Amino acid sequence: MRRLMSLFGRPLAQLGRRKLQTLPVAAERQLHGRSVDSIEPRPLCMQSKCGEKQPPQTLRWGIAPVNLMTEDFATALSVLPAHRHSITSCMDAYRSQATAFANKHRVPKIYTSFEDLARCPDVDAVYISPLNAMHCELCHLMLNHDKHVLCEQPLGMTEQQVVELVGKARARGLFLMEGIWPRCIPAYHILRHEIMRCKLGRIFAVECTLGWQLPTASPKAAEYAGVAKDLAPYGIQLALWVYREVPQQLRVSGKLNRDGIDVAADIDLIFKGNRRARLVLSAEQDLQNTATIRGTKGSAIMNSLWCPTELTFENRDFQFELPVAERSTHFNNRIALCYEAEEIRSCILAGLTESSLFNHDESRLMVHLTSQIKEMLEEDDQDARFQQKQAVG
Amino acid sequence: MRRLMSLFGRPLAQLGRRKLQTLPVAAERQLHGRSVDSIEPRPLCMQSKCGEKQPPQTLRWGIAPVNLMTEDFATALSVLPAHRHSITSCMDAYRSQATAFANKHRVPKIYTSFEDLARCPDVDAVYISPLNAMHCELCHLMLNHDKHVLCEQPLGMTEQQVVELVGKARARGLFLMEGIWPRCIPAYHILRHEIMRCKLGRIFAVECTLGWQLPTASPKAAEYAGVAKDLAPYGIQLALWVYREVPQQLRVSGKLNRDGIDVAADIDLIFKGNRRARLVLSAEQDLQNTATIRGTKGSAIMNSLWCPTELTFENRDFQFELPVAERSTHFNNRIALCYEAEEIRSCILAGLTESSLFNHDESRLMVHLTSQIKEMLEEDDQDARFQQKQAVG
Repeated sequence: MRRLMSLFGRPLAQLGRRKLQTLPVAAERQLHGRSVDSIEPRPLCMQSKCGEKQPPQTLRWGIAPVNLMTEDFATALSVLPAHRHSITSCMDAYRSQATAFANKHRVPKIYTSFEDLARCPDVDAVYISPLNAMHCELCHLMLNHDKHVLCEQPLGMTEQQVVELVGKARARGLFLMEGIWPRCIPAYHILRHEIMRCKLGRIFAVECTLGWQLPTASPKAAEYAGVAKDLAPYGIQLALWVYREVPQQLRVSGKLNRDGIDVAADIDLIFKGNRRARLVLSAEQDLQNTATIRGTKGSAIMNSLWCPTELTFENRDFQFELPVAERSTHFNNRIALCYEAEEIRSCILAGLTESSLFNHDESRLMVHLTSQIKEMLEEDDQDARFQQKQAVG
Repeated sequence: MRRLMSLFGRPLAQLGRRKLQTLPVAAERQLHGRSVDSIEPRPLCMQSKCGEKQPPQTLRWGIAPVNLMTEDFATALSVLPAHRHSITSCMDAYRSQATAFANKHRVPKIYTSFEDLARCPDVDAVYISPLNAMHCELCHLMLNHDKHVLCEQPLGMTEQQVVELVGKARARGLFLMEGIWPRCIPAYHILRHEIMRCKLGRIFAVECTLGWQLPTASPKAAEYAGVAKDLAPYGIQLALWVYREVPQQLRVSGKLNRDGIDVAADIDLIFKGNRRARLVLSAEQDLQNTATIRGTKGSAIMNSLWCPTELTFENRDFQFELPVAERSTHFNNRIALCYEAEEIRSCILAGLTESSLFNHDESRLMVHLTSQIKEMLEEDDQDARFQQKQAVG
């Protein structure tokens, strides 16, 4: 077990002017005292409203680069009014790929280098989703060219990288968000609201399972980041959404494959007052992608960690019908990226550099926690090997 | 079994002004009547010769894009005299990757788009080695910008693609070669020479095994081309090198995985007079990467299909010591790419558009054969499924 408060006392104190304890304030201000119906949440403007006084401001997106995730993002934008979001340019190193994407999603400009896209004057915000290790470099490039950025998680591979990125975005007055999109969808808002109204009593447990058999029998470092970096963030962000504080301790056990990649892990995050979150993760077997939140008055179950369409309280069921686009998404329920896009547009129009739904401090905490978990899994493995060796010797 | 002569009578007749039967002529002219020692083969100029009358012409390479294969190519060039080959520019979509490569291999110019590299005036020839499906597009791009091209196999995914590429290279007077580099290395030259001197008598069998367990348990089409496209070319090119004619028939059996990818195959190429080549290929298990050539007077064994360092005749053994570079290559024996680079420089200096060691007609025949094999494996699988269904029904 690792005591986090002592371990990262220093990093915590340096988490910027806004302390981590202030994470949920914005959301709390937003939700407190309003009924569920009134917050149902940041309603999507699915159709153009007549009689808007101000002409609607269109957020002009650049896509860097085109791939299956980007396809889903474009599909998600297609359910939103065209005067609110448009994709004005897309990039792929191969012109044929960029052209195919542009034809499919009616994108007027194509580029074959990230740098040319970064220089495009018709782009306000860039959606970044390539290989994890390249996120940070692309974020810097886009920020350097005064573009707002939505970047798939992780923002960086190290805490230092995230700190530098966040510093740059703030200094340049640009919006930057790590793509933890569950935070933007309806079920998460309802969950938070019900928790704040004490419908579950005092919460003492969050339980998440998430796993699937990777197509690769023995993933290597170049191809797979491991469950700590790849799957844990889904559970961690839920735990932080529920408890609204920094965990005090971590308890981790798991399994590394022969190439040293963590392919299974049981992770306990322990919060103040012995309240817990347990994540059961696997890259070797299919597990249910579900979450249960237990409190003294009852429990809630989400049918998916990242985009629940059903949220079940003991005395109430919520169903969330997702928007329907002309084409389906490649990944499950990614049509709900439309909620994230709307959140980002609102923030940018309001002149914000971060979203209160998943802010810069949380990005920093996230990379801190996942790095700690990875490190503990590796230490654990070394201990086990040492003990095995001792036993044999 | 498929009778090739009838099946691709039309394509064969259209294989360009130079008939396929002329394939080995150039090599024959080159080798005939010379002793083994005199041809030992296209000797590498490992050190600068003093007193050369003409100042040596340097072939200036562009790298598109940087990756592990390109690393090996750069390492192979490092054993050749700098006044004969230099890498003047390299490309990667991520500037950090291009910069790292440039620093490591002392490359003066970096680019982040293929198109910018194509426009670079300091590049004579481009080495192309990205994803198979993108080879053809990149070859066109580079030829369009008057660059000579060395492209890893396959040149194209279809015969039509290869025909168009070859047509463009010839029309523009540019050199184009598919990277079948075994053809350039010493052991292959000795083998051909000994065969031509009838040291093995009448050859009637070529036997190749090649296989390894892919890290992916069940490869998908997006990730893996299948053994027909990925492994068969190594055996086919050897068979063509030995028999010097178009096979008359194909006999194929194999196994498709649940995603329809060919993961194992036994392939017989049947040449005139019932002379045969058998390829045993697998993407599921490790097989020896060896070849045996059997003739009426004896047999020869190569200890590797693509870069033998030992060639054993019944009465004679040849050892081939490969050049040694400061760093090792990522893939086995790829230091011998230096022989291919030298061949290309010679051809370009001589104003040729193709190499006699693996010419355009062979590229066309190769894609024809591998496509036929893939198709036959798929038909075979459908028949098996149909019969299984009949048996059950």
